[in-house]
Amino acid sequence: MRFTILGDGAMGTACALLLAEQPSQEATIWSNFDGHCQLLEKDRENKKFLPGVPIPDKVSLTSDIATANNADAFVVAIPTVYLADTLGRIADQLPSDKPFISVVKGMERETFRSPSQIISQCLGDPPIAVLSGPSHAEEIARGMPASVVAASGDLRLAECVQQWFTTDRFRVYTSLDLRGTELSAALKNVIAIAAGICDGLKFGDNAKSALMTRGLVEMTRFGIALGAEEETYYGLAGLGDLFTTCVSPHGRNRRVGQKLGEGMTLEEILAETEQVAEGVETCRSVHDLARKKGIDMPLTEEIYKILFAGKRPLEAVEALMNRPLKQER
Amino acid sequence: MRFTILGDGAMGTACALLLAEQPSQEATIWSNFDGHCQLLEKDRENKKFLPGVPIPDKVSLTSDIATANNADAFVVAIPTVYLADTLGRIADQLPSDKPFISVVKGMERETFRSPSQIISQCLGDPPIAVLSGPSHAEEIARGMPASVVAASGDLRLAECVQQWFTTDRFRVYTSLDLRGTELSAALKNVIAIAAGICDGLKFGDNAKSALMTRGLVEMTRFGIALGAEEETYYGLAGLGDLFTTCVSPHGRNRRVGQKLGEGMTLEEILAETEQVAEGVETCRSVHDLARKKGIDMPLTEEIYKILFAGKRPLEAVEALMNRPLKQER
Repeated sequence: MRFTILGDGAMGTACALLLAEQPSQEATIWSNFDGHCQLLEKDRENKKFLPGVPIPDKVSLTSDIATANNADAFVVAIPTVYLADTLGRIADQLPSDKPFISVVKGMERETFRSPSQIISQCLGDPPIAVLSGPSHAEEIARGMPASVVAASGDLRLAECVQQWFTTDRFRVYTSLDLRGTELSAALKNVIAIAAGICDGLKFGDNAKSALMTRGLVEMTRFGIALGAEEETYYGLAGLGDLFTTCVSPHGRNRRVGQKLGEGMTLEEILAETEQVAEGVETCRSVHDLARKKGIDMPLTEEIYKILFAGKRPLEAVEALMNRPLKQER
Repeated sequence: MRFTILGDGAMGTACALLLAEQPSQEATIWSNFDGHCQLLEKDRENKKFLPGVPIPDKVSLTSDIATANNADAFVVAIPTVYLADTLGRIADQLPSDKPFISVVKGMERETFRSPSQIISQCLGDPPIAVLSGPSHAEEIARGMPASVVAASGDLRLAECVQQWFTTDRFRVYTSLDLRGTELSAALKNVIAIAAGICDGLKFGDNAKSALMTRGLVEMTRFGIALGAEEETYYGLAGLGDLFTTCVSPHGRNRRVGQKLGEGMTLEEILAETEQVAEGVETCRSVHDLARKKGIDMPLTEEIYKILFAGKRPLEAVEALMNRPLKQER
C-alpha cells in the first residue's frame, strides 16, 4: 500500500510516520511549498512543525503532485482555511476513486463546509473517511500511545483505515458517524480557546472543568442540530479530543486562549506564530451558523465577542458565571 | 441559618468558608479529633489539610458535638472509611429531621453502601442531599470559581442547598439524580488513579484522554446498572468532576496513581500521607460489586490488579491497549 499525505504540517508528518511503520506500507508527504519540502529533505526532520523527530528514509518527500498522485489512498492534512484553494490547484491530478482520509479539524468560513465536504466537492466525491480523537501530533510522532476513531459512512472503509493506521501504540476504533466526528473535532477547538482563557486568568481546574463540561453540552447541541449522533460526543472524538485539546501544552488553540486571558489581543497572538489555530476561524463560522439556525451557544457567543469584538475575557467569564441559577438539564 | 460541618478535612473546611460567606449564615466545624480542633483554633488555619487559608472568626470550631448539634443543616465531610463509625458514635446527639448534605465520595467496603446510604442508616433517615462536581477544596477555599451540582430526590431540598452554597464565584445547579451523582463521584476517583498511572508512565495527554473517555463509559455502565441516570455522567458531577480529578495537581487519587506508575508500591505510597485517597478503597468495592453483578469493568479490573495483586502498571496498560480492534460502541 502506498499512501500520499497532502500537507507538511505536524499532523501530516505524524501520519506519514505512523503509516510507514507497517512493513507493507509506504508513505509520501506532499508539500504545497517547494522551499519547505527542500528543507524537510535536507534535514530529514520537520524542524518547523515537529522538531526533534527524524523522518525515516521510508517516507518520501515531494512538492510535485505528479510524482505523488498514484497512491492507493490519500491523507488530507491541510488547514481548513487553505484546503479548498490547495485542492483546487491539484484536483485534476488526483484520482476520485481512491480513499481520502481527512485529519483536518475546522469549518470553512461563510460556506460552513466541513473538511470532508470540501474534499468531496473539490475532488469529485471520492470515498472519504475522517480520523479524529485525542491525537496531538507531537506525542504520536514520538511513539506515545493514543486511541482514535476512524469514521466513515462506509464501515468497510473505516475498517480499512483502522487496519492501515493501527500500530502497537496507536489504537483505532471505527465509527459510522462521520458528520458527528468531524463537527466535534471542529468545535472542540473553540472550547479549547475558552479553556485557555481560564488558564490565562488563573481560574484553576474546577472552573476549567466546569467550562469543558458546559462546552461539551454546547458542542453536542450544535452537532445534533446538524445531523450528528449524540453518542459520538461522549466518545474519543468528542470528549476524548476535548480533554487533550484543553489540557495539552501542545494545544495551539488552548495557547491562543491562554494569551487572550493574559491580556494579549488576537492580532498580537496571531502575529507570533506560523501555525494555524483552527479554533479562531471555526469560532466565527460556528457563531454565524448557530445564529442563522437559532442554536443556543452561550459559550461560543462569549468567545466570539472576545476574539472579534474586543470583549475583555474576565467580563465574558463573569457573564457566563452570573446567569440565573437553574437545574443542570 | 446555622450550619455544622462534620469533618475537619480540606473539603469540610472549604464548605465552612463558603457557607459563612453569606451574611445570614454561620458555620461550625466539628472535629472528631480534640487535638486537631485545638490546633485549628490556635492557628485559625487548617495547616494540615488546607494550608495557607485563614479561617475567619465567623467559623466556629469544636470537637464537642453537644455544642454543634443545634444547627439548621449539617454538612457531612468525613471519609467513607470512617463514616459509619464516626456517625455511630454521635448519632444519638444528632437530629433526624434536619437536612444532611454529603460531600463524601466513596463506597463502603463489603456493604457497598454509598455515603448517603450510610448517613441515612446511621441517623434515622434524615432529609439528604449531595453536593458534587469539579470542586477541589484547595481552589474553592481560595475563592477561585467553581460550578457544582446539588442533588436530592427532593427538588426543594436541592434548591435550598443551591441557595445556601451559592456565592458570586461558586455556582450550584440542582439535580434529582442523587444516586448517579454519588456513584459518579465515587467512581471518578478510581479512574483518576488510572490517569495518574498514565502520568507516572509518561504516556502523554493523548493516552490519558483516551483512558478518561473509556473510564467515563465504564463509570456510566456501572451507574446505570445501579439505578443512576445516564445524563448525570455527562454533566458536572460526571465528566466535570472526572476532568478535574484526573488533571489537578491537588488530586490525591491521581497522585497515588502517578506514584504507582513511577514504580512505588501502594504500601509505600499510603505510608507517605495522612490524607485519604478514596479511590483505593472504592476500587476494591466497585471491583467486588461489579463482579457480583456481572458488570464489565476492564479498566477497574486492571487498576484493582495493580493496587491489590501486584500487577505492573505497564503490563496493565498494555493489556488494555492490546484488546481486539472494534467499533467504538
